[in-house]
Amino acid sequence: MNLEEMGSRALVASRVLASAGTAKKNMALEYIADALIESAGSILSANEEDVKAAKNAGTRASMIDRLTLTEERIKGIADGVRKVALLEDPVGKSDGGWQRPNGLKIQKVRVPLGVIGIIYEARPNVTVDAAALCLKSGNACLLRGGRDALRSNLELARIMRKAIAKAGLPEDCVQVLEDTSHETAQKMMKLNKYIDVLIPRGGRGLIRSVVENSTVPVIETGAGNCHVYVDESADIDMAVNIIFNAKTSRPSVCNAAETLLVHKNIAREFLPRAKEMLDKKHVELRGDELTREILGNSVVPATEEDWETEYNDYILAVKTVSSTDEAIAHINKYGTRHSEAIVTDSFANSQKFLREVDAAAVYVNASTRFTDGNEFGFGAEIGISTQKLHARGPMGLDELTTVKYQIIGSGQVR
Amino acid sequence: MNLEEMGSRALVASRVLASAGTAKKNMALEYIADALIESAGSILSANEEDVKAAKNAGTRASMIDRLTLTEERIKGIADGVRKVALLEDPVGKSDGGWQRPNGLKIQKVRVPLGVIGIIYEARPNVTVDAAALCLKSGNACLLRGGRDALRSNLELARIMRKAIAKAGLPEDCVQVLEDTSHETAQKMMKLNKYIDVLIPRGGRGLIRSVVENSTVPVIETGAGNCHVYVDESADIDMAVNIIFNAKTSRPSVCNAAETLLVHKNIAREFLPRAKEMLDKKHVELRGDELTREILGNSVVPATEEDWETEYNDYILAVKTVSSTDEAIAHINKYGTRHSEAIVTDSFANSQKFLREVDAAAVYVNASTRFTDGNEFGFGAEIGISTQKLHARGPMGLDELTTVKYQIIGSGQVR
Repeated sequence: MNLEEMGSRALVASRVLASAGTAKKNMALEYIADALIESAGSILSANEEDVKAAKNAGTRASMIDRLTLTEERIKGIADGVRKVALLEDPVGKSDGGWQRPNGLKIQKVRVPLGVIGIIYEARPNVTVDAAALCLKSGNACLLRGGRDALRSNLELARIMRKAIAKAGLPEDCVQVLEDTSHETAQKMMKLNKYIDVLIPRGGRGLIRSVVENSTVPVIETGAGNCHVYVDESADIDMAVNIIFNAKTSRPSVCNAAETLLVHKNIAREFLPRAKEMLDKKHVELRGDELTREILGNSVVPATEEDWETEYNDYILAVKTVSSTDEAIAHINKYGTRHSEAIVTDSFANSQKFLREVDAAAVYVNASTRFTDGNEFGFGAEIGISTQKLHARGPMGLDELTTVKYQIIGSGQVR
Repeated sequence: MNLEEMGSRALVASRVLASAGTAKKNMALEYIADALIESAGSILSANEEDVKAAKNAGTRASMIDRLTLTEERIKGIADGVRKVALLEDPVGKSDGGWQRPNGLKIQKVRVPLGVIGIIYEARPNVTVDAAALCLKSGNACLLRGGRDALRSNLELARIMRKAIAKAGLPEDCVQVLEDTSHETAQKMMKLNKYIDVLIPRGGRGLIRSVVENSTVPVIETGAGNCHVYVDESADIDMAVNIIFNAKTSRPSVCNAAETLLVHKNIAREFLPRAKEMLDKKHVELRGDELTREILGNSVVPATEEDWETEYNDYILAVKTVSSTDEAIAHINKYGTRHSEAIVTDSFANSQKFLREVDAAAVYVNASTRFTDGNEFGFGAEIGISTQKLHARGPMGLDELTTVKYQIIGSGQVR
């Protein structure tokens, strides 16, 4: 089936799904979870072929790991779907209502976006996560995963579509593109006629390409050049804990810290303590002059490029600053508006940081690693938006809806 | 000054403006209003040059009228600015806050978008309206108006910048591009480094071009192929009033009706009455077969193209349908998701219409002409969004903000 035809089917399905009740959508999600467990065998054998092909193509081990499904992982995916069924349905919620002097009654009501396109990379679990979140929020989805996971994705889609139909909803609510060519992805980015929103999930290159080529509105996700700023009044134990956690608990993710900023007045006391902890995980430090004076020449000299880099690795840039203002200026210059933290005991500095740092999530005395739909209490997330339009920060079900004004009159004209 | 430099200045100004208090922003708005009145002479003489040039270039009268400023119009513009000063400041409003089991306190706070780019056509009043709304909502703006109004726009900008500086805010909060070339507009659409959102205001061609070429996130405004559906249970007097108002009160605007849908069971009674009213304004009717059978051959036969066309003129397409479902299907196929109305006395049909019509504003028993920031009670509007992302329908000050999560901890790590 070609993309145009898939888009048209998605639109038709989205109209039915938009009016579907919560009970029916939850039933579809439960059927999907059941079916994933029951069909684990066929999923695993499709996945095995993907993994074999990837190995033959010389794909690196970390990618193979992300691609690989196991009985355990399938169970985890199914559990995730059941969790989505338990979440509150955002559709139909009122964002307020009022009456005008002429008697018109205006209600602002949450409705699904319509058709959501998702372009993503190798992990097959995204296929199910994204489909479940779209379904619960009343949106049809067009999923374009990576070539590496195609067999897995198609099998997962086949199973989900059957379960959706069993619940009495259109199976075209979920469609996976069989054609993973670059050309078709480009076409998808111009399919304004059928797709309401595109969400890219993956590496920087993928996201850049979607932002640059799409005429469909995009929600940009992903890049995180996050900072932890240790103010002169910081509790040193707390600051050591926070930077250690923010850097090393999972360096590959977007909410991990990439640069440590330290007030000069606390640097001599704090930096050796921080280094001692970071050494346990063999974190490579790249510092400015004062940092190297304090910590010694094992610290690599930092360059301009280091301030800009999202390492996603056991590397940390370190810069000393003379004030909270200087820290904020550095963050606003080099940050990607994702997650930024200050460790401080100064009320004034905490407020200044919260106010002036331009980012989706700004922390006082906590790790940047909490920027996450689950950690925020949303129950799930479709991604973390780093743009300012529509959604910012972790996107849960609410962020997969838009509004409609419903206006009740009694013959009013203007 | 080149665009890059202007963008960089806007960013710097936006940071200061984002932290400015409401009182200071209101003071700047009052100073702007005062200065517009005081400097009416210099504005009028700049405008006179624009008008003279446009006349020499053979610009048509309706465009000349939109371009022309008068003492009265300047007073109206200044009054508009004072009205914006009276509106509630959206910045700092909380969209909710909660505490997590680990003790993290999360607050979702409204903050300015940052730098807003606006690309618009000839009307110089937009320069002041847009600047005032951006200023009040804490956003710096880069305004790229039409070449025809350049002298007027530059003079308005000069006056506003002086007033802003007098209030102690950076004058670069408002900048008008001197270079109105196509190339520079194209560059502006790619200035992601400095511009957070682009809002095109103008004709369909302008909006299309921005949507297609911009990598900066866009809020699409404008196109309105709106319908009024007269259900079989409609009150005929009310229905006649509503279609007359929706079509003829101001045919050039986006919330005017373009197609009338009529249930077959009421068509013979309703259509002659509607025609009688519409004839008073010499509205040309283009109808389907049954409409022509009822109203006679003075009604032009409607073609597929008529269902798709936003006339913005005294022309109305008329189609008879057999059910509310057929009316909804027609609207969802041909509508531009702007404003749609049903006239009915059936509760079931009203609810079906409200639920199933996919549009920013859906009306029961009222004219589509109410889709407007002022009519909705927002006090002002920067445009009417016809996309689903970020904002839908009339955009007031709230829609010129985004959110920031502020998270307070006591040393939490993950």
